[in-house]
Amino acid sequence: MSKPKVFEKPIGVKDYLPEAVTKLRNIEFCVLACMERWGYTQIITPTLEFYDTVGVASSTADKKLFKLLDRKGSTLVLRSEMTAPIARVASSLLREYAFPLRLSYHSNVFRAIEEEAGRDAEFFQTGVELIGDASSEADAEVVALAIASLQAAGVGTFKIALGHVGFLNGLFQETLEGRLEDQQTLKEHLLSRDYVGYREAIQALALPEEVERELIGVLRLRGGDEICAQARMVSKHPIAQDAIRHLCEVWDVLKAYGVSEHVVIDLTMIGDFSYYTGMTFEGYAAELGFPVCSGGRYDNLLSQFGRPAPATGFALKTNRILEVIGKVAVDRPTRILIAYDAEHREEALKRAKSTRESGNAVVTTQLITDKAAWSEAIHKRDDGQYELQGVVYQEVINLIR
Amino acid sequence: MSKPKVFEKPIGVKDYLPEAVTKLRNIEFCVLACMERWGYTQIITPTLEFYDTVGVASSTADKKLFKLLDRKGSTLVLRSEMTAPIARVASSLLREYAFPLRLSYHSNVFRAIEEEAGRDAEFFQTGVELIGDASSEADAEVVALAIASLQAAGVGTFKIALGHVGFLNGLFQETLEGRLEDQQTLKEHLLSRDYVGYREAIQALALPEEVERELIGVLRLRGGDEICAQARMVSKHPIAQDAIRHLCEVWDVLKAYGVSEHVVIDLTMIGDFSYYTGMTFEGYAAELGFPVCSGGRYDNLLSQFGRPAPATGFALKTNRILEVIGKVAVDRPTRILIAYDAEHREEALKRAKSTRESGNAVVTTQLITDKAAWSEAIHKRDDGQYELQGVVYQEVINLIR
Repeated sequence: MSKPKVFEKPIGVKDYLPEAVTKLRNIEFCVLACMERWGYTQIITPTLEFYDTVGVASSTADKKLFKLLDRKGSTLVLRSEMTAPIARVASSLLREYAFPLRLSYHSNVFRAIEEEAGRDAEFFQTGVELIGDASSEADAEVVALAIASLQAAGVGTFKIALGHVGFLNGLFQETLEGRLEDQQTLKEHLLSRDYVGYREAIQALALPEEVERELIGVLRLRGGDEICAQARMVSKHPIAQDAIRHLCEVWDVLKAYGVSEHVVIDLTMIGDFSYYTGMTFEGYAAELGFPVCSGGRYDNLLSQFGRPAPATGFALKTNRILEVIGKVAVDRPTRILIAYDAEHREEALKRAKSTRESGNAVVTTQLITDKAAWSEAIHKRDDGQYELQGVVYQEVINLIR
Repeated sequence: MSKPKVFEKPIGVKDYLPEAVTKLRNIEFCVLACMERWGYTQIITPTLEFYDTVGVASSTADKKLFKLLDRKGSTLVLRSEMTAPIARVASSLLREYAFPLRLSYHSNVFRAIEEEAGRDAEFFQTGVELIGDASSEADAEVVALAIASLQAAGVGTFKIALGHVGFLNGLFQETLEGRLEDQQTLKEHLLSRDYVGYREAIQALALPEEVERELIGVLRLRGGDEICAQARMVSKHPIAQDAIRHLCEVWDVLKAYGVSEHVVIDLTMIGDFSYYTGMTFEGYAAELGFPVCSGGRYDNLLSQFGRPAPATGFALKTNRILEVIGKVAVDRPTRILIAYDAEHREEALKRAKSTRESGNAVVTTQLITDKAAWSEAIHKRDDGQYELQGVVYQEVINLIR
């Protein structure tokens, strides 16, 4: 065990300096306000949850959960996502509230990570859950709200890939009946978007030519209206047919929302297939290879908390959105410096008060009280702004006389 | 180890339902905006820190730290306050930034608690640190900003008790020289505001009558201008004299800020005396027995992170402020319900969009598509508002025909 240096912090965690915080909180604020306009109200749940309930119910792999023991020997986790905690609240504190429930959140979440992976151990998610509504209308609402949220966050160009876990489940049950291990292998290739691996795995299975063609054909099921028609032809398995019917209903509602230009139907997109039970989606920004949001329907989770109900929702990956919009300038109040000597203190502090009341940011300083030292310390820059001790001010009021 | 029930959460942690969240976030938003107007910019630090650095440097008693091990066997803590993490950042990422630094934060913090104590294991703090300025002007700035922050949070009536650790240190060194254990006992009585215990402890020491009178007289050193003069007479010890001089300077600046009506000099108020090195203060709301904020000068902390510097700051106890202003109504957008059938979907979703754009909160629903079922489900209340499935709406737009 090596002793960390004084300035070190644990692996995978971050400090956010003022400029990044302004942007991060601006995303948070705009997105939560957008969600509120869609009728979603915010909840806050604790950072620590019981492993046996929320930890086990969460969609996070067990080895990625941050575990600790409380004083009574119960295993706790640092929350790894917000859907399971919200399911707990919907089933306990909100038990008497009728469905549907529309809830939003902004929260830090935790993942115990392998050092070498270089991934974040703590990051932010901003999302919603719509609980108690099984309709395709509800699925379309959360997709449309995800689009509105990305726009509110300032993400200019993005696409939502929309899929349904039932399509592949049906197709695989039809073509690879009982061969669960092979099904799992293929799903994992799709989950990691490794289409070459998917093809190779299919070829290795030595299936009848027609079946092989059908399974490989899935990779072409990406597009708009035409995919709904095409997919209906691929698999006649009732699970697959149900999935396509539901997905096409969602697509129709998205057209009514006027947002289908942002959406691509993608039947290779299965999300976390052990967790989602229906429609799933991911959002991709033009600037980034990683998804900036993900969501879907999870109709089996609530029953684990004793209040069975269908549910659908999504989470924005707030840190990744920060990367996308990181270069955008954020409005800040005008920054004014008021320098004064002891004699002008009262005048200076009064002016600071009234200047703050008109919405400006004011720093007062009596650190430099000598006129000559002041002239030396303050620096007028080429852009007309002033710099004192490394801080830039748009205006300076000098009460040193 | 008993298995927790599905709806349980760990001891000492809370869920905040929408109404409480609206109020809590309103406090956060208004206070951070106030701090920004005073020139403080916000930082975010990680939830997890190394025990050996931030954990040890924090003002929290070791047994109250939430500890866990990372995969390499290093001990981590869940941050127990924000001053030590900010000192770490000021000494590392912000090392090249000139002093003074003005930083603000809003954060959850953690305390490992005894179950029977019934105290929160996770709660919120909103505060500032002013680093690199040793002047009484700086101390007065943070006290005045604490007052402005409490006002911004909506706390109507409150008093700031202002003290200085140097006064009692000097007085005790003079009157109880070398008797460190007795000094400690007396300080602890004052820290817990147990004045009866303080008197009894002094009487038990069997001190010369004059010394006893002097030590008991401390309890009367609470007030305004007059206390500055009186306190100078009590102890001639240079540490006590320095403390009083500094405190009276702070008081003078607070008068120049026009906020001294909110402040009471209280020389029995020593805060966490192992941590603070100068001025200390606590804010009390009329409605509550607990402090709603606390702060002070801590000139020894930064050196533990390799960048020695004077510093002063405070934290609002955000949850307690929520208790104080809990009954105040918060403005929310008008909540409108748009109900539609399949035929009117497009019209309904278009109206939802434009109604949201004018700042209203809109819920759309196609759950009820039958006119008769709709009349049954919707309920017009005596106050003119509408209720559907337990949710109240100010307006209803019915597109079910």
